[in-house]
Amino acid sequence: MSRTEISTLGEFGLIRHLTDKITFQQPSTRKGVGDDAAVMAYGQKRTLVTTDLLLEGIHFNLEYVPLKHLGYKAVAVNLSDIYAMNGTPTQITVSLGISARFSVEDMEELYAGMRLACEKYKVDMVGGDTSASMTGLTISITCLGIANDKDIVYRSGAKVNDLICVTGNLGTAYMGLQLLERERLAIRGTTDSPTHRLTDSPTTGDSIPAFEGREYLLERQLKPEPRRDIIDKLREVGIRPTAMMDISDGLSSELKHICQQSNVGCCIYEDKIPIDFTAAEVAEEMNLNILTCALNGGEDYELLFTCNLKDYEKLIALGDIYLVGHITKPEYGTMLVGRNGEEIALQAQGWQAFKENV
Amino acid sequence: MSRTEISTLGEFGLIRHLTDKITFQQPSTRKGVGDDAAVMAYGQKRTLVTTDLLLEGIHFNLEYVPLKHLGYKAVAVNLSDIYAMNGTPTQITVSLGISARFSVEDMEELYAGMRLACEKYKVDMVGGDTSASMTGLTISITCLGIANDKDIVYRSGAKVNDLICVTGNLGTAYMGLQLLERERLAIRGTTDSPTHRLTDSPTTGDSIPAFEGREYLLERQLKPEPRRDIIDKLREVGIRPTAMMDISDGLSSELKHICQQSNVGCCIYEDKIPIDFTAAEVAEEMNLNILTCALNGGEDYELLFTCNLKDYEKLIALGDIYLVGHITKPEYGTMLVGRNGEEIALQAQGWQAFKENV
Repeated sequence: MSRTEISTLGEFGLIRHLTDKITFQQPSTRKGVGDDAAVMAYGQKRTLVTTDLLLEGIHFNLEYVPLKHLGYKAVAVNLSDIYAMNGTPTQITVSLGISARFSVEDMEELYAGMRLACEKYKVDMVGGDTSASMTGLTISITCLGIANDKDIVYRSGAKVNDLICVTGNLGTAYMGLQLLERERLAIRGTTDSPTHRLTDSPTTGDSIPAFEGREYLLERQLKPEPRRDIIDKLREVGIRPTAMMDISDGLSSELKHICQQSNVGCCIYEDKIPIDFTAAEVAEEMNLNILTCALNGGEDYELLFTCNLKDYEKLIALGDIYLVGHITKPEYGTMLVGRNGEEIALQAQGWQAFKENV
Repeated sequence: MSRTEISTLGEFGLIRHLTDKITFQQPSTRKGVGDDAAVMAYGQKRTLVTTDLLLEGIHFNLEYVPLKHLGYKAVAVNLSDIYAMNGTPTQITVSLGISARFSVEDMEELYAGMRLACEKYKVDMVGGDTSASMTGLTISITCLGIANDKDIVYRSGAKVNDLICVTGNLGTAYMGLQLLERERLAIRGTTDSPTHRLTDSPTTGDSIPAFEGREYLLERQLKPEPRRDIIDKLREVGIRPTAMMDISDGLSSELKHICQQSNVGCCIYEDKIPIDFTAAEVAEEMNLNILTCALNGGEDYELLFTCNLKDYEKLIALGDIYLVGHITKPEYGTMLVGRNGEEIALQAQGWQAFKENV
């Protein structure tokens, strides 16, 4: 049998390749693979379902992620997918694979974080599966949610001339990760403990000052919040985005998904992309280009959405929503206009772990 | 912080410990952790959800499990949980963690098996998540299903004097595993290839004859079928079990769950437990006690259910359903009556992987 490396397709290519032959047999199935969540019709309302698998060493590093934060984040990223459909998350199930390295107290910490997120967002933990693992910690969370059919926002609804909006700021979670990674390497050089946790109990006098004034960046990385507040505000003022998704893999990658599925192009402006001041400062310190981080950093879990032009005034008044560009005809492509006015095609670096993992 | 080993609680103890503080906030949540599936009320009908995490080296060994069979089984065991609630499975989501050892062709095989199970049981694959893994193959499947509220059968409904029934036969999947394991070790002694697959393309003349006439045992281990047929038959003749679950961890363990949740005791008879003839033969060959295998082997994915006495005649006429005992008052305990008439308390060995994994 021939052998094709998975890295030649990448994550999205692999999913497309494996799922393109799927046909549906159930009348309740309304939308399958390809959006933030699948959509089912069991009753009057629609049921949404999304799932995420988090693997130690790939998605998180326990040297600097406290288990309680990890639990919170694991739930938060799933809720974010349901909000990105303009739905309300209602239940989660949690499956864990746990190696003998972990104690009951460790799992209590992890669950405490998950419970905290569930309480804050009024989501019930209704089931799961717990098993031994030979290789570290595995977390698989599935989130269910509900929405009225007419309220659901897909990635495929963007129209030419629609406004492109993002919430919060971008690249900040990535800069938080860089800070944590830098400290981890610095501490590795000064201690022998490979399991020392940076954020738990730093033992060197150097590690805390390195984060001073930069706690926000760490928080963005370690404890992201899904933007329920934005979804609520949009609903209150009667704005229904035409297309929406959450920004988990970076703005470039997500914009390309929306453009591809909506069969449109886009034009965004470098100077409109919301950047946090401290993130920019740290990027400069580390010789990183903050624009690249904002476009491709990922894990911000902000919302990217498109809206009809008529909603412009109402949108801006809501706060923490930034207009970054507009939707174009498909033949225009997916373009970024630089500060100098030059247009360049957006590159979706997105998720490259299959290549790194060879 | 003190450290308590997870092995001191075991799988079920850990889940109970971590989930006993959970309270519900959503009106749609009807049943959480503790049955084969959680139950939600989104519309007229109820929505069921169950999830399973399968880890390489813990739940499957790719030396003797072909990927296509693995895909089929991963879906089948989730469907089994929905049938065990007396529901109809409708959709699944699939999350995969894939190390660089696997090729696109490998994943096609895995998906072919999953698709086969989906087609046979009319279930739609609606979503998922694919990611790199540093450590082998991880499969997380969540299954959604539907049921009328009045049809759902919980583990908690068994009543004193109810009949205890099991379907098919027990211990057979475990004996299939023993056969495969014995051959794996034999082949290891004669070849240098640690990734040689027994069932794919045996290279030694000895490996095939070892399975001759015992293909059924392998099939029970490698390609279990959820008992939709039994659920359909029971419905046709109007029998609603009072309690039900599928037998994944062994009859003893499952009976104890039903008795605990229904607050009853039970009495089952050794000579009533359905045993496959070939399984008994192989057990003798391997110096294993087939009764122990039938009580604790696990992975049979047969149904265990209790029924009102009045259904006796109708039940027996359905075929492939075996009456193994009856429900008693709780003070009687969970007892097994041996062929010699002696009563012994059932021991739930069940799932011990946390201990083995230290």
